[in-house]
Amino acid sequence: MRKVFQEELTQVGDQLVEISRLVSEAMDKATTSFEVADVDLAQDVIAADARIDFLQNSLDERAIDILALQGPVASDLRMIVGSLRMSASLERMGDLARHIAQLARLRYPSTVIPESMTGTFKRMAELDQEIADKLTVLLETRDLEVARDILKANTAINDLHLSVFKAIAAPEWKESPATTVDVALASRYFERFADHGVSVAQKVTYLVTGAWQPTGTEHS
Amino acid sequence: MRKVFQEELTQVGDQLVEISRLVSEAMDKATTSFEVADVDLAQDVIAADARIDFLQNSLDERAIDILALQGPVASDLRMIVGSLRMSASLERMGDLARHIAQLARLRYPSTVIPESMTGTFKRMAELDQEIADKLTVLLETRDLEVARDILKANTAINDLHLSVFKAIAAPEWKESPATTVDVALASRYFERFADHGVSVAQKVTYLVTGAWQPTGTEHS
Repeated sequence: MRKVFQEELTQVGDQLVEISRLVSEAMDKATTSFEVADVDLAQDVIAADARIDFLQNSLDERAIDILALQGPVASDLRMIVGSLRMSASLERMGDLARHIAQLARLRYPSTVIPESMTGTFKRMAELDQEIADKLTVLLETRDLEVARDILKANTAINDLHLSVFKAIAAPEWKESPATTVDVALASRYFERFADHGVSVAQKVTYLVTGAWQPTGTEHS
Repeated sequence: MRKVFQEELTQVGDQLVEISRLVSEAMDKATTSFEVADVDLAQDVIAADARIDFLQNSLDERAIDILALQGPVASDLRMIVGSLRMSASLERMGDLARHIAQLARLRYPSTVIPESMTGTFKRMAELDQEIADKLTVLLETRDLEVARDILKANTAINDLHLSVFKAIAAPEWKESPATTVDVALASRYFERFADHGVSVAQKVTYLVTGAWQPTGTEHS
């Protein structure tokens, strides 16, 4: 009985890793479609998001079954409840990758971002990709050094996000209103993606150490 | 023992109602501060959000204690897990009210929204307020007629949100880039607030009937 239970816990952990991998892949494709205006790739990301949603639901059902049938306590219980929350954050990261792909599709055959901003967005995309990849590693290894890297990458993204809003408000900004809004929303999507990544990293940290970083992150 | 357990479940339900009330109050003040550029009121909302976050944490701790100590099954278990999710959605609604108040504070002493858009935003604010108020009623009464009203209000908000983005993209739009971004973000905050309200309404529906509306709502 005990052995079955441990296997079930392991399966929940594995499923989180699988979702995290799919999120990372989605973000990779989404940012490429966004940077080079590849509408087919954007379409892939949009279609593949359903799979992430499905896996999230299936993980949640499994977690609830474990709660019902095994009545886990202490660290096992924290792990199950933590998994429910992490799966919700990962699912939202998948949604944000989809939003980025949807922007790419909406503006195709143009690119979303004006020339002057491509460097900034390229850097944000790289940092988000780093966060997504490291999240998978963190979920597999629980190496808290990796969690710290994720927090660092998030700080860099926040700075870039602020710089985008400053650029938009500056007198030199001459883009159309539609482009201006695209830039603002895209920047927000990249920033939110990182924030949800931090949420997951904090939950792993909590499961390992019993202490959160003081949160201070946004979830909306 | 059984009686204590039922009391604990009731307390979780009561705490959800309390958070929902605070969210509704926050949205009321946030939209007023936003409409009339009242920086003191905006400040109130921003400060009061910490209380919502605190109550969410305390509800979650209580729910996890119940899971650990009582090992609830079947509908009680669903209720506890559902509460964890609903508290997360309500907390995000509080964040969104805070974001709206932060926009008001940022642009003070100006208003955030240009003259031509005040009617649209007034209507969005009213619909969000309706959703917040009805959510409290729904959590108290579990009357699914109220859940349907929330879904209807959300559809109306989605239409208004689209109309805002159309207006921004139209050739007649002459506002500054900063105002354009404010309008786009504010519209998104109002739309997200409603979406999270729908999430909560769907969870209550699920707890009462065992069936979700097919979700199709966004959470990011």
